Amino acid sequence: MFSLAIPFDLAGVPQLPITRRVNPHLWMLQTGTDLRAGVQSGAVDGWGYADDIFAMATHAATHWDGLSHIFYDYQMYNGRDCTLVSATGAARNGIDKLSREVVARGVLLDFPRLLGVDWLEMDHRISVAEIERAFEAAHVEPTPGDILLMRTGNMRRARRNGGWDDYVGVDEPGFGIEVLPWLHEHDIAGVAIDNWGFEALPAGHPTIWLPVHAVAVVHMGLLLGENFSLEELADDCAADGVYEFLFTGLPLPLTGAVAGPVHPAAVK
Amino acid sequence: MFSLAIPFDLAGVPQLPITRRVNPHLWMLQTGTDLRAGVQSGAVDGWGYADDIFAMATHAATHWDGLSHIFYDYQMYNGRDCTLVSATGAARNGIDKLSREVVARGVLLDFPRLLGVDWLEMDHRISVAEIERAFEAAHVEPTPGDILLMRTGNMRRARRNGGWDDYVGVDEPGFGIEVLPWLHEHDIAGVAIDNWGFEALPAGHPTIWLPVHAVAVVHMGLLLGENFSLEELADDCAADGVYEFLFTGLPLPLTGAVAGPVHPAAVK
Amino acid sequence: MFSLAIPFDLAGVPQLPITRRVNPHLWMLQTGTDLRAGVQSGAVDGWGYADDIFAMATHAATHWDGLSHIFYDYQMYNGRDCTLVSATGAARNGIDKLSREVVARGVLLDFPRLLGVDWLEMDHRISVAEIERAFEAAHVEPTPGDILLMRTGNMRRARRNGGWDDYVGVDEPGFGIEVLPWLHEHDIAGVAIDNWGFEALPAGHPTIWLPVHAVAVVHMGLLLGENFSLEELADDCAADGVYEFLFTGLPLPLTGAVAGPVHPAAVK
Amino acid sequence: MFSLAIPFDLAGVPQLPITRRVNPHLWMLQTGTDLRAGVQSGAVDGWGYADDIFAMATHAATHWDGLSHIFYDYQMYNGRDCTLVSATGAARNGIDKLSREVVARGVLLDFPRLLGVDWLEMDHRISVAEIERAFEAAHVEPTPGDILLMRTGNMRRARRNGGWDDYVGVDEPGFGIEVLPWLHEHDIAGVAIDNWGFEALPAGHPTIWLPVHAVAVVHMGLLLGENFSLEELADDCAADGVYEFLFTGLPLPLTGAVAGPVHPAAVK
Repeated sequence: MFSLAIPFDLAGVPQLPITRRVNPHLWMLQTGTDLRAGVQSGAVDGWGYADDIFAMATHAATHWDGLSHIFYDYQMYNGRDCTLVSATGAARNGIDKLSREVVARGVLLDFPRLLGVDWLEMDHRISVAEIERAFEAAHVEPTPGDILLMRTGNMRRARRNGGWDDYVGVDEPGFGIEVLPWLHEHDIAGVAIDNWGFEALPAGHPTIWLPVHAVAVVHMGLLLGENFSLEELADDCAADGVYEFLFTGLPLPLTGAVAGPVHPAAVK
Repeated sequence: MFSLAIPFDLAGVPQLPITRRVNPHLWMLQTGTDLRAGVQSGAVDGWGYADDIFAMATHAATHWDGLSHIFYDYQMYNGRDCTLVSATGAARNGIDKLSREVVARGVLLDFPRLLGVDWLEMDHRISVAEIERAFEAAHVEPTPGDILLMRTGNMRRARRNGGWDDYVGVDEPGFGIEVLPWLHEHDIAGVAIDNWGFEALPAGHPTIWLPVHAVAVVHMGLLLGENFSLEELADDCAADGVYEFLFTGLPLPLTGAVAGPVHPAAVK
Repeated sequence: MFSLAIPFDLAGVPQLPITRRVNPHLWMLQTGTDLRAGVQSGAVDGWGYADDIFAMATHAATHWDGLSHIFYDYQMYNGRDCTLVSATGAARNGIDKLSREVVARGVLLDFPRLLGVDWLEMDHRISVAEIERAFEAAHVEPTPGDILLMRTGNMRRARRNGGWDDYVGVDEPGFGIEVLPWLHEHDIAGVAIDNWGFEALPAGHPTIWLPVHAVAVVHMGLLLGENFSLEELADDCAADGVYEFLFTGLPLPLTGAVAGPVHPAAVK
Repeated sequence: MFSLAIPFDLAGVPQLPITRRVNPHLWMLQTGTDLRAGVQSGAVDGWGYADDIFAMATHAATHWDGLSHIFYDYQMYNGRDCTLVSATGAARNGIDKLSREVVARGVLLDFPRLLGVDWLEMDHRISVAEIERAFEAAHVEPTPGDILLMRTGNMRRARRNGGWDDYVGVDEPGFGIEVLPWLHEHDIAGVAIDNWGFEALPAGHPTIWLPVHAVAVVHMGLLLGENFSLEELADDCAADGVYEFLFTGLPLPLTGAVAGPVHPAAVK
């Protein structure tokens, strides 16, 4: 079993202030120090408890983008009008609608190992040919409903000094819209990546910052997973040569949310 | 694949005000209505996005109790001092430490079906004999590391009118400390239940409200799962006679939290 | 000096769940129990500190409604389009724009004492004649820019048993739109009341629930203050016969908020 | 009337991550864009509303330190044990206990103007002699219960380029413990300053980072106000030569909080 989540805490992926997203904040409602001090209500001698609450952006840490996250031509997936996502949440396509599709066969595509590098360059744009070569190297055939874990090595690069160097709001390796037809033809259910913005950035589109999101989420209903931690799994796959596994990645079923924090795992 | 989570929203399991726990609150940072109104920053014509954050008690909705949740004799699991759980979180035994043990073989023990009732009475206390009979009825042997899903039917009873009648802060069916030796001998890794407080309540202990928690969490390191939704899975198990499955239930790896929201699943 | 605020905590005015408003939640970041236990980072022997954060709806507890709170004909005050209030807050008419107008002469109008009752009946609708009589009884003339504190006694009634009986979401005494011309002619800057919804409810309008809000906030720019605690001040005014005073009621200058929590005071 | 608060929003005084304090976050519950889109529940044509909630550290933005904020020798003000401040808040000395003392005569002491500079150097330590000279220059005598507004110009310096340059977590001008006897002898009720940490920093104490806090809050019960915006008031005082005024500065009465956000004002 390999955990594919980054730690959920304040030190997680830095957030751009303009987004108003926040990393997980944890606040204690009851503590052991209160118990020790004899001030915990309901405690009996040394018997007591701890309790807590937390707050976080759904897009902080490891998460799936929901099908209500992106709009194109004022519509979201399945032709739903964008105004169905209001201040009260997503009346359609909420993250709580995901379920069966995120327990599936998973396949790791390890591009840095394929190319013999530690990580892809920040301006590397993964091609269809590279995807097909990665499948070949993995001795796996794509099958409908697969969840693909695409390792760019970008998280490894960013964290090599312990922090998050040039990980957020900068250029990043990934793939562009030219790959989407291949994913569609092979009926891939979801793609998760060790990146912040999912796409190769800059994407090269004249007006739209994140064109892969626009096409994949709105038109294909493809699940996009961001900030997945793939290093430990990748080491194991390289060691045993087995790149397929049971993937489990059910996000919290937050009613009406547009993305879903998740603790995904690969079970080999 | 069977989802075992209740919906994560304000209508979830009622919270006792004294606990200061809160059900999931979802707040939108960006909406489709803003896009439609032409006031979303960065939008290009109909291309835009939605975004959100949420806050919740770790003990709201479906969750695992962590090994830092309960203290006995001023200690938590593994003899750690209670003062390691302070206002900054659990320095030891945080929920983020759970991982491999919650992807395991799962076994459903369906006590109402065993006893030919819709749900256990609110004062029913599950016995070791009933557990053993449930295993027999399931044609399964307990094995080390198993996750047991114990269905009392209490959630079905509470929700039969759509709300949560007599579910929280009242008597509930479950088991008592007399069952713990059996669980320990069979090296059960975790037990999840369709109940609010896990234990048979009132527990009958002269001073301690939740004695099963005290013994199971502090002394055994047993994982306790609360508010698991077991109805759909139970119907399926009754239909096909198969009561074992792959259980996946990784909580969000919230650093230092004393419990973990989770979207568990049974994969048959 | 008389404080006119109710306590800001979880026990404050009950919130209707449908509104998703929350009463003040206080969460500790650092505690004295941590210091005592020797686990507070940075502490030197017994030298240390406590710290905390809080969250609350701007409309919980004692507050001013801002001029971005209400829309009529898709406009807010000063003819601003309603779409200027988006998921990022009020781009116009935010509560942070209030300032000088809420430090002004204040006048208490004590309707229950005027009418010789403990509190107004829940279906009492304050008339212009009663307002004028209240001014006469106070030996005060209305002057432009006044802040009027209108005591209905409804908070006293609701809290006579310690809780909040029939205070929220029910009928309440107050005034109707027929009073607004008088307020406008006398150039009153704001009106605060010991009520939840400000208006006499039910308001009697065929389609609009809160017509006073619609006219007063949108068309007059009148400040409406809700959940003001007026009992102590009223007792003093009755004792010394002085019903005018310096009123100070600056809300927190929350950028872009549509209402403002405030700790108002009367200085006699 | 002069507002003495900085804006309450995300752009406020930067917070050191280690403190886990957060600047005001505003989240919308209802918006005008929802109304415009026709998706607001309860709206009638163009009649509708906006609503919001917020969260913030009590020590973010402009605030008073409460008498439960600091401990010395495991005690807070009035000899209360530090363990009275637990995960459930301050059982004693909460900020909600402040009231009358923060509506008082205020006196501005404008040290930069006294010394003929734009702002005090970051290593300037205000002396008793300078305080007495500032009173003389203001033609005011200190009286018991005064609130002193001590302008260092440090906020003006930090914000001269629009941001917050070297304002938080660095050296700052202010005063040291040698000034406290003078404040005590003159029975000053509170001191507010245009600084982040209140004290001259580094304070020069061998082990305690903030010795003025330790003595002033714990032993004297002196109110310390931080991040007060004094520029507009100071300009006015310099223009008319009047340095005394009515000061109003009631913090939100958050039950059990250790500090209090406030929108203070000077009324001349």
